[in-house]
Amino acid sequence: MADTWLTSLKTATPQDGFELAIKLSRMGVKYTQPSAEARDRLRPQYAEDANALIASSQVVAINFQTIAAANNYWRGA
Amino acid sequence: MADTWLTSLKTATPQDGFELAIKLSRMGVKYTQPSAEARDRLRPQYAEDANALIASSQVVAINFQTIAAANNYWRGA
Amino acid sequence: MADTWLTSLKTATPQDGFELAIKLSRMGVKYTQPSAEARDRLRPQYAEDANALIASSQVVAINFQTIAAANNYWRGA
Amino acid sequence: MADTWLTSLKTATPQDGFELAIKLSRMGVKYTQPSAEARDRLRPQYAEDANALIASSQVVAINFQTIAAANNYWRGA
Amino acid sequence: MADTWLTSLKTATPQDGFELAIKLSRMGVKYTQPSAEARDRLRPQYAEDANALIASSQVVAINFQTIAAANNYWRGA
Amino acid sequence: MADTWLTSLKTATPQDGFELAIKLSRMGVKYTQPSAEARDRLRPQYAEDANALIASSQVVAINFQTIAAANNYWRGA
Repeated sequence: MADTWLTSLKTATPQDGFELAIKLSRMGVKYTQPSAEARDRLRPQYAEDANALIASSQVVAINFQTIAAANNYWRGA
Repeated sequence: MADTWLTSLKTATPQDGFELAIKLSRMGVKYTQPSAEARDRLRPQYAEDANALIASSQVVAINFQTIAAANNYWRGA
Repeated sequence: MADTWLTSLKTATPQDGFELAIKLSRMGVKYTQPSAEARDRLRPQYAEDANALIASSQVVAINFQTIAAANNYWRGA
Repeated sequence: MADTWLTSLKTATPQDGFELAIKLSRMGVKYTQPSAEARDRLRPQYAEDANALIASSQVVAINFQTIAAANNYWRGA
Repeated sequence: MADTWLTSLKTATPQDGFELAIKLSRMGVKYTQPSAEARDRLRPQYAEDANALIASSQVVAINFQTIAAANNYWRGA
Repeated sequence: MADTWLTSLKTATPQDGFELAIKLSRMGVKYTQPSAEARDRLRPQYAEDANALIASSQVVAINFQTIAAANNYWRGA
């Protein structure tokens, strides 16, 4: 993957950090399945499945741990 | 998602922190499935399924780790 | 949920901390499925299923990480 | 559960710590399913199932993280 | 596995760190299933399955936690 | 288990640490299913199953977090 998509874990606010966690979670999928077409085809499979949505939220939670630590929990904010 | 919904990880009490963890867990789902109607349709699928409830509790536990650390475990409380 | 059920992560002993981890794990379920009747109905589904029991133990383990850290691993005890 | 079974997270060696992690993992199951008879009945269900064994090893890994941190990774040993 | 494939957790950028996390995740699979042919045969099984892709992204997220900590979150970058 | 198999979490290199993480992951299985014969019988069940391989890689990732922390991320190396 030649594109630059992640240059820093710093974000201005916790919400920006949460949204970066979502991006990391999607990139984790994208590196395994690089075809946008294939990922779109799978979308109904997980967007309408409670277990897949909970699992997605778990990946976001793990990535958010990393980003929150990187931002020292936005304590100074 | 244009709305501001997360401006700080600080909470007054551990219980408030736990409830914020629940909010983060739900937002993780919402970013993946933004339709409130679709999420409501899935509710019976997970609310009556022990495995889905345990998985939900796990996501909350992971988010609570982050929030507890951010609050220095409410040690001064 | 109006009741106060969590005012501190401090416990006297590691075992008390483990039992608090169990409480947090159950509360994670309760916030998603507030009906005690529904939860009781699901009990046989997970109490007799090895995978569900292992998954439950995992949620407890994650919550115990948080509580152990909050208590500085009871090192002074 | 009236019995005292966990008074310290300290262990003499990493291996003792790993074995304590196994104990915590089993106790996490036991609090949810207190009947020894029921747990024995489930044993063949997970002891002959690769996914259940991998999941068990994961719970042990999470508990071992906690115990290793509590022992400062046995660095002085 | 005689080859040397991991000499440092240090990376120049967060993105390099994320890509190292992907490598670690694949090596975790490779140690369990060393046959490249077998792994290729399984590729369609997970590349077209939303749950497997989410699970893969979760492993990457866990390895990224380790690498991000090792790099002190690239705070000086 | 009377044998001594884990006396230190220290390793010379990150790769040695990753291989120790694999060992811990296997020992987590072995404590639950001590029969080598039974484990061998299960091998085809997980070595040819993408989900089981991903789950195995996840356990390794969690154990690698512990070992990497124990080695201070091999920063001095």
